[in-house]
Amino acid sequence: MGPDSSQDAQTVSQLGEFGLIDRVTAGRPQSPGTLIGPGDDAAVLAAPDGRVVAATDVLVEGVHFRFDWSTPEQVGRKAVAVNLSDIAAMGAVPTGLLVGLACSPDLPTNVADELSAGMWEEAQRVGIGIVGGDMVSATSLTISITALGDLQGREPVTRSGARPGDVVAVAGRLGWSAAGLAVLGRGFRSPVAVVGAHRVPEPPYAAGPQAAVAGATSMVDTSDGLLADLGHIAEASQVAIDVRTEQVEVPQRLIEVASALGADARHWVLTGGEDQALAATFPPGRPLPEGWRAIGVVAEGAGVTVDGGEYEGPAGWEHWR
Amino acid sequence: MGPDSSQDAQTVSQLGEFGLIDRVTAGRPQSPGTLIGPGDDAAVLAAPDGRVVAATDVLVEGVHFRFDWSTPEQVGRKAVAVNLSDIAAMGAVPTGLLVGLACSPDLPTNVADELSAGMWEEAQRVGIGIVGGDMVSATSLTISITALGDLQGREPVTRSGARPGDVVAVAGRLGWSAAGLAVLGRGFRSPVAVVGAHRVPEPPYAAGPQAAVAGATSMVDTSDGLLADLGHIAEASQVAIDVRTEQVEVPQRLIEVASALGADARHWVLTGGEDQALAATFPPGRPLPEGWRAIGVVAEGAGVTVDGGEYEGPAGWEHWR
Repeated sequence: MGPDSSQDAQTVSQLGEFGLIDRVTAGRPQSPGTLIGPGDDAAVLAAPDGRVVAATDVLVEGVHFRFDWSTPEQVGRKAVAVNLSDIAAMGAVPTGLLVGLACSPDLPTNVADELSAGMWEEAQRVGIGIVGGDMVSATSLTISITALGDLQGREPVTRSGARPGDVVAVAGRLGWSAAGLAVLGRGFRSPVAVVGAHRVPEPPYAAGPQAAVAGATSMVDTSDGLLADLGHIAEASQVAIDVRTEQVEVPQRLIEVASALGADARHWVLTGGEDQALAATFPPGRPLPEGWRAIGVVAEGAGVTVDGGEYEGPAGWEHWR
Repeated sequence: MGPDSSQDAQTVSQLGEFGLIDRVTAGRPQSPGTLIGPGDDAAVLAAPDGRVVAATDVLVEGVHFRFDWSTPEQVGRKAVAVNLSDIAAMGAVPTGLLVGLACSPDLPTNVADELSAGMWEEAQRVGIGIVGGDMVSATSLTISITALGDLQGREPVTRSGARPGDVVAVAGRLGWSAAGLAVLGRGFRSPVAVVGAHRVPEPPYAAGPQAAVAGATSMVDTSDGLLADLGHIAEASQVAIDVRTEQVEVPQRLIEVASALGADARHWVLTGGEDQALAATFPPGRPLPEGWRAIGVVAEGAGVTVDGGEYEGPAGWEHWR
């Protein structure tokens, strides 16, 4: 392979696996904790805490993203964001990413470049890099990302520590991605605010460790939607959770979009997934950390209710499972 | 979902993501270092060394495995083995696995069960478990595994530390997987010894840390084939490597299989991939650790030679890239 071939290559098969890896990783900044980065059999990262937090997410073209709705750069950002959000939901800070990419040999080189640019952009938002991974041939595009993180000496915040009397709170946006998906599903490309929220979530990464410092008793990221993910906490903690709608902000922008589409903005906020907000429970009587807002309470019992009753949703809404 | 549905479900979509995850992980033994296993936003593993080793491998149906050649259980074992081998090649011991599975909703439940049984079986060979992961819908089956490991206080053995004068040595089988692939490619299913070696490699996991203890200056696993992977060491270390064929054992069994197929057993040994043997360089004049055998020497220069010359292979063999 000549020195200029990576400039000329139009598809990833022309680049070859090693050419592609080099192109995706060469010259990129790594975190100080990256002791061995890409290019060896495995990466080595500092784990100063003596423990390591690890989460894997898989995104499949046509299932989790569509290139007619999102650019490759946006897909790359989202793939990293959903993963980093899991690390934040344990109260940890991310330390590095491994990326498994299965793609067609015919994938245009510029798509691979933009995809990796998006991944690096999101990783750099939290000061980390892609430290390793694998690239293989496949008939469809599958992105599998593993994020590693460090607890900085704190106990991990699991789903199972909520106690009756705790305050339920959220950080980050809710309903925006669902609104964007509804807009895209109708064939529109605006308003950009909601469409952009679906293309690239903005998880409140710092709010996870801040919640842990503030004594959060349980935490989860809202990938499946607020009520569904609170259900995970209720189940793991063996408690009941009641969401108080008078405390749940429904942004004016979502109300406007919902009105235009004949949809229900509150429903998006309560059940829309993929915003990667954080939901947590805190002991009562303490101030919440910055960026967190109370939305309900924990009680004895089981399940998730809204204003004390089962959530029915708007007409025609099928119960989430 | 009723309590018996997981018994009755015929496909993974009938089980649902959470049912499948529960079925794959419930009741399985985890290592003592697994502080938080499956079921939360992320796993938490002990990293007693203050560093963590991490590697990702992706296997795609039809590219890396075929269910007409291997059982799901064998595929699961192989997917884990190729990954654990990367951890061993750094001189580390594995601590846990994360599994990203993209599969058709129509995947029969028993295939998923056997696949995961194989993964657990191989993981248990080194005393670890599957600590987390993700399962998503896709049109084809893609398995992405991330292995984590611990260096036990040793320096990682990279590809870049080989020095002129070092001894080149290998641990584990070479050429067996290539022989098995050749047999399967001709439509045969035996001899079982070589076909089995292709279906499930037997990486010498313990030989990696043992090499590190013995002062190995560089190490790699032979996923691409001995000469190609020694090429990675030569390039990263900026040295030349010469393999001495009089030192390279060609097992009698491979000679017999090659003879029957009109193939070249030595060629399988030198270039066959997927055996996940380990190749390393050691300072001269020291005894090699148990299970390691010398096969060549490191010199000033660049590239990999066989008996001092370029490896030509049998007639019709295209140079590896």
